[in-house]
Amino acid sequence: MKREIYMDYAATTFVKPEVLKEMNPYFTEYFGNPSSVYYISRKTKMAIVKARESVSKTINANKDEIFFTSGGSEADNWAIKGIALANGNKGRHIITTKIEHHAVLNTCGYLEKHGFEISYLPVDKSGRVDLDSLRKAIREDTILVSVMFANNEIGTLEPIEEIGKLCREKGILFHTDAVQAVGNVPIDVQKMNIDLLSMAAHKFYGPKGMGALYIKKGIKIDGLIQGGSQERGRRAGTENIPGIVGMGKALSLASENMNEESKRLTYLRDRLIDGLLKIPGTRLNGYRTNRLPGNVNVTFDSVDGEVLVMALDDIGIYASTGSACSAGSIEPSHVLTAIGLSDKNAKSSLRLTLGAKTTEEDVDYAVSSLNEIISKLRENNKKWSERID
Amino acid sequence: MKREIYMDYAATTFVKPEVLKEMNPYFTEYFGNPSSVYYISRKTKMAIVKARESVSKTINANKDEIFFTSGGSEADNWAIKGIALANGNKGRHIITTKIEHHAVLNTCGYLEKHGFEISYLPVDKSGRVDLDSLRKAIREDTILVSVMFANNEIGTLEPIEEIGKLCREKGILFHTDAVQAVGNVPIDVQKMNIDLLSMAAHKFYGPKGMGALYIKKGIKIDGLIQGGSQERGRRAGTENIPGIVGMGKALSLASENMNEESKRLTYLRDRLIDGLLKIPGTRLNGYRTNRLPGNVNVTFDSVDGEVLVMALDDIGIYASTGSACSAGSIEPSHVLTAIGLSDKNAKSSLRLTLGAKTTEEDVDYAVSSLNEIISKLRENNKKWSERID
Ligand SMILES: Cc1ncc(COP(=O)(O)O)c(C=O)c1O
Ligand SMILES: Cc1ncc(COP(=O)(O)O)c(C=O)c1O
Repeated sequence: MKREIYMDYAATTFVKPEVLKEMNPYFTEYFGNPSSVYYISRKTKMAIVKARESVSKTINANKDEIFFTSGGSEADNWAIKGIALANGNKGRHIITTKIEHHAVLNTCGYLEKHGFEISYLPVDKSGRVDLDSLRKAIREDTILVSVMFANNEIGTLEPIEEIGKLCREKGILFHTDAVQAVGNVPIDVQKMNIDLLSMAAHKFYGPKGMGALYIKKGIKIDGLIQGGSQERGRRAGTENIPGIVGMGKALSLASENMNEESKRLTYLRDRLIDGLLKIPGTRLNGYRTNRLPGNVNVTFDSVDGEVLVMALDDIGIYASTGSACSAGSIEPSHVLTAIGLSDKNAKSSLRLTLGAKTTEEDVDYAVSSLNEIISKLRENNKKWSERID
Repeated sequence: MKREIYMDYAATTFVKPEVLKEMNPYFTEYFGNPSSVYYISRKTKMAIVKARESVSKTINANKDEIFFTSGGSEADNWAIKGIALANGNKGRHIITTKIEHHAVLNTCGYLEKHGFEISYLPVDKSGRVDLDSLRKAIREDTILVSVMFANNEIGTLEPIEEIGKLCREKGILFHTDAVQAVGNVPIDVQKMNIDLLSMAAHKFYGPKGMGALYIKKGIKIDGLIQGGSQERGRRAGTENIPGIVGMGKALSLASENMNEESKRLTYLRDRLIDGLLKIPGTRLNGYRTNRLPGNVNVTFDSVDGEVLVMALDDIGIYASTGSACSAGSIEPSHVLTAIGLSDKNAKSSLRLTLGAKTTEEDVDYAVSSLNEIISKLRENNKKWSERID
């Protein structure tokens, strides 16, 4: 039997059986529209309340500050466009970074076409935003700063608390795309002065098509989806009850186990990094330690990342070259080039992300397999170039 | 054991067991991000293709004209805002009707605040848009007509083919909110000259949080959610695979059984209408025949609709006063007032919508229960007013 090792947890996770079990009755039995008044609807209404509590607790928000969405992208779009459109009279300048997910970058790009001005902050060679450059970028007409909590390609954790403090001092709203962070690292929106925070359930063993936006109480923001009065009038659409229930359950599981699981993954991550760095011509992208517990991103000299991913697929190891959304694209990763890699090196990179089912054996098997594959690929490259010479 | 009779299928439906069964493996086993290249992702990519085919077939579209969304509200918002923002240079006038769902009405209201002009067409006393008034409303700068396929409160079917023809002649884009129609009545976007069509899976025994927008090939429309290149670059966000699979399965089931089920529901609907009209002081809202197979909406003189819904709930009959989204609101239904009901009569109305599990016994039980409840309520009212007099 072919071994199957999933090492792409940052792209998406499976739904945990406990989560699916919790969701199940809401598909067929308790399916009532929560806006209705009768019995099976009261059941669904209560389920939403419970899930909202679980989500709010995880980030130390109030439960009336959590608004369910269809995922991370919707949350990012809503946060940025909603603030821009509701506060355009105050100013039309937004600050973000060069290494954001496309859900943020392309939303900002869209706003640029509609009369907003965006500053894209550079990052250092490990992917960290520099507070000084943020300070310098702030203008009179800056209405929003959007900096991700943790990068999806290289796992770098941004100095969120410091950024939050700075934004609060300057009276500028602060949004963080925490899609990769929620459920993996501790978050406290109050302590960190976060005004808006995006998350997606399918990154922490919850269902796909489900996310949330935290909006600090009192913040002026337009809706992205108008219609019925769901989500206290801020996000229309019949609620995805099983999704909401699943998200709540997944986050309460993640919170319970965060400490332990974080230690376990950090150990595996470091073992994987150590193993890979022994392969000649290998460099680690991002920080050695200041990174997500499950994230490894490395560059292998003169090996094509896409070829590597396919070779790994052949032996049942599932990995990616970077963000899933841009997989298959011919462009080099904007994150890797932002931290200073050449296009060629960016294209020679591999992301391995670990999660709930990853074991020490998996890690060791990945290392030895990669060692072998990379030698072979380089061998082949050499033969080819000799023939061409 | 208390009887449970669900008569609110227009608010939402349960997920059919066959649908849930089809969805299940995609939560836990085939969970890969379709944007990735490895095995479990190719599986999910194929599942999306299959579902897209099923959805496109149902409305006679091409499969590359179907774009999955998180529901009907997102589809409506996308259609209307997307067209407005992409074609604002051609004109800023949009025509819709007074009886649309709030997902359309409030989206139009939002656009009004941003410099668009909206005409709200009146309807006749059965809820039908008059083609002449549409013709008269069309202006040089009209860029979009949005008329719902079937009304969610009174079930009235609009003259979609005629509207489509007129719009095509005038070179104006035509959007229809078909959330209540898809899966219940035949739709042919080509024959009907529909350019954009919204649907929601939870109205035809598919999952909540799942919908689609049909966009005719070649139409210029902005995205609502920017980010990754999912849905051919038009709707960002990691795909909700189980949701998509469920929607595809639910629609193929609905299409297979549409004729038969439509006949069955029409029979039950008419039996229910006949039964209810025998209760003194009862009037039918909407057409006798030109209405959705499962929709009944009646006004009972001097009976409060909300009180009625709660009394029905007590005996296990689940119904509503109108649209679920506005249930609990103190405003009289905008649909019922648009067809000429006084506020008082609008508030004395009840919607009963039938579906897959409804039987003849249910219908007869509902009639006799309502007969009893209404007599009692009126009796009480009389006593009260006598005491007050
Ligand atoms: C006619 C109509 N349009 C739009 C919607 C909104 O759909 P959803 O609640 O799935 O977003 C509904 C149902 O709620 C509807 O009946
Ligand atoms: C950092 C980050 N932001 C946003 C997203 C978008 O989330 P979703 O695909 O759930 O819409 C992702 C994942 O795809 C992500 O990693």
